[in-house]
Amino acid sequence: MNEFNLIQKYFTRPTRHTDLGAGDDAALVTIAEGMQLVVSTDMSVAGTHFFHDAAPYDIGWKSLAVNISDLAAMGAQAKWATLAIALPEINESWLAEFSCGFFACAEAFAIDLIGGDTTKGPLNISITIMGEVPKSKALKRSSAQPGDDIWVSGTLGSAALALSHLQGKIKLENDILQANIHELHRPMPRATLGLSLNGIATSCIDISDGLLADLGHVLKASNLGAEIHIERLPMSPYHVKNLHEPLIHQCVLAGGDDYELCFTAPPSKRDEIQLLSQQQHLFLTCIASTYKPAGPTDSGVQPLYKHMPLSLLKQGFDHFA
Amino acid sequence: MNEFNLIQKYFTRPTRHTDLGAGDDAALVTIAEGMQLVVSTDMSVAGTHFFHDAAPYDIGWKSLAVNISDLAAMGAQAKWATLAIALPEINESWLAEFSCGFFACAEAFAIDLIGGDTTKGPLNISITIMGEVPKSKALKRSSAQPGDDIWVSGTLGSAALALSHLQGKIKLENDILQANIHELHRPMPRATLGLSLNGIATSCIDISDGLLADLGHVLKASNLGAEIHIERLPMSPYHVKNLHEPLIHQCVLAGGDDYELCFTAPPSKRDEIQLLSQQQHLFLTCIASTYKPAGPTDSGVQPLYKHMPLSLLKQGFDHFA
Repeated sequence: MNEFNLIQKYFTRPTRHTDLGAGDDAALVTIAEGMQLVVSTDMSVAGTHFFHDAAPYDIGWKSLAVNISDLAAMGAQAKWATLAIALPEINESWLAEFSCGFFACAEAFAIDLIGGDTTKGPLNISITIMGEVPKSKALKRSSAQPGDDIWVSGTLGSAALALSHLQGKIKLENDILQANIHELHRPMPRATLGLSLNGIATSCIDISDGLLADLGHVLKASNLGAEIHIERLPMSPYHVKNLHEPLIHQCVLAGGDDYELCFTAPPSKRDEIQLLSQQQHLFLTCIASTYKPAGPTDSGVQPLYKHMPLSLLKQGFDHFA
Repeated sequence: MNEFNLIQKYFTRPTRHTDLGAGDDAALVTIAEGMQLVVSTDMSVAGTHFFHDAAPYDIGWKSLAVNISDLAAMGAQAKWATLAIALPEINESWLAEFSCGFFACAEAFAIDLIGGDTTKGPLNISITIMGEVPKSKALKRSSAQPGDDIWVSGTLGSAALALSHLQGKIKLENDILQANIHELHRPMPRATLGLSLNGIATSCIDISDGLLADLGHVLKASNLGAEIHIERLPMSPYHVKNLHEPLIHQCVLAGGDDYELCFTAPPSKRDEIQLLSQQQHLFLTCIASTYKPAGPTDSGVQPLYKHMPLSLLKQGFDHFA
């Protein structure tokens, strides 16, 4: 099987909203009038982002899902993706499962695969996602306002808890592991929520590196502060029960890999947000409020546990820390 | 140095035509009215696309240049790129040189770096390039016409000759190596030519995998045939002198890595094309004509040497062959 046949067999599907898909030097798409193009890229590497023996279906799903999450965090509609993949060898059963997982996610979120590259090398998956947002309506990090509520979707810390188990840092009972591992392997990007926050949220970010790091980016960019009481954060029953453990603090505040959205909105929007929560069958929790910091260097997040400042080993995920 | 500082220090430059650059969940750009978005992705892997000890400046230049070449082959104006890079470790002098090479190419072709990802892993560079083309004016592979001239820019086989030397397949005198190695390390994408072929060429492709493979794609997609006399191809004096060597046939016909453009145009456009050649100080050589094949399976390229069919060891570059 050569490169061309490999692409034909595993990476070619009909497109929905594309003028010219894969197969030429480049793809062609039309951006609707009044819309901006939104672009984001994420790279996933074996041994760094997933275990070498991770299920290929999950790798395929997740590598696309994390990109969709970035566009959701902009309030944008993801529509197109390119996939560049380096493979150590052609392993057809691996490829079949990987492409199944990738396209399951693409179908679920109506994403067209419009191009890519396959090459030989240590396993590496690089995806660029593109989409549309009405002009000047994107949810940026820098536009949170003083006195805004801070909201979080879903629950935090599940992916990190499951990862801690897989890394041998903690031993979970099987039912607890099963209740948490789905978030690690097949995160569900909050695409519908992101779109519906247009006109409601003042800023938004996806929690990929952990709440403290990601909310920290928003607060720094908006020059605001916030205190986060860990007890008020949405989390699984296991997390609640073990909230005295430093590992649980770490998972909930700095675990990352949750791909929930963290957004700010004025208190006047609370009813609308509760309505979204009901419509989308998705927990939306108001976790704190923003305030104007005393000085420009005082912006950022202060985590609290039992009303006392909490210090963590790691504030968030850093590949080179 | 953490990931954030690394991006700040090495990968942040002012942008020219971007609404929101790197630093948020995604970038925002506006596609001009009447234009289509053009997108392409290429991945470069250490050990596959370049030697592990290759000059980082060259890696930076080339990884962007090959992407620009894809957009040139569509007759499109490249404007934006994202860069995802996996690094085994933070090596600041390597990064400084890599980013110098990358941005030298970005400056030369007015490309904005609008986003990306840095992560830990075996060295891998994945770039997505985006640009614009007037609606329905992109130069596709499938629209060559019977009786069209086939043109090639620049010379063929230089990059492959230099690579053959580096791989120890041939021993070149230093002056010969120097005369050819620039094409291998710092290819010059034919961006201006690509743009000016709008309204002249009927199809276009960049020669990244070798003339036979790439022209073959055009002819197959357009259901046409062509005979290529190797003696008529543009090549360096060394190649001409050694044209009896099978290695030279291989370099010129199937070497790849030249990033010249191969395009088709009706004979009525010859004067216009000669004028472009003069204006752009770029050799443009008419190498053959297309014809309607006897049957649908007869489309494609037939290479000839001294009027006899030539068979090559490899038709083009395939990572998994």
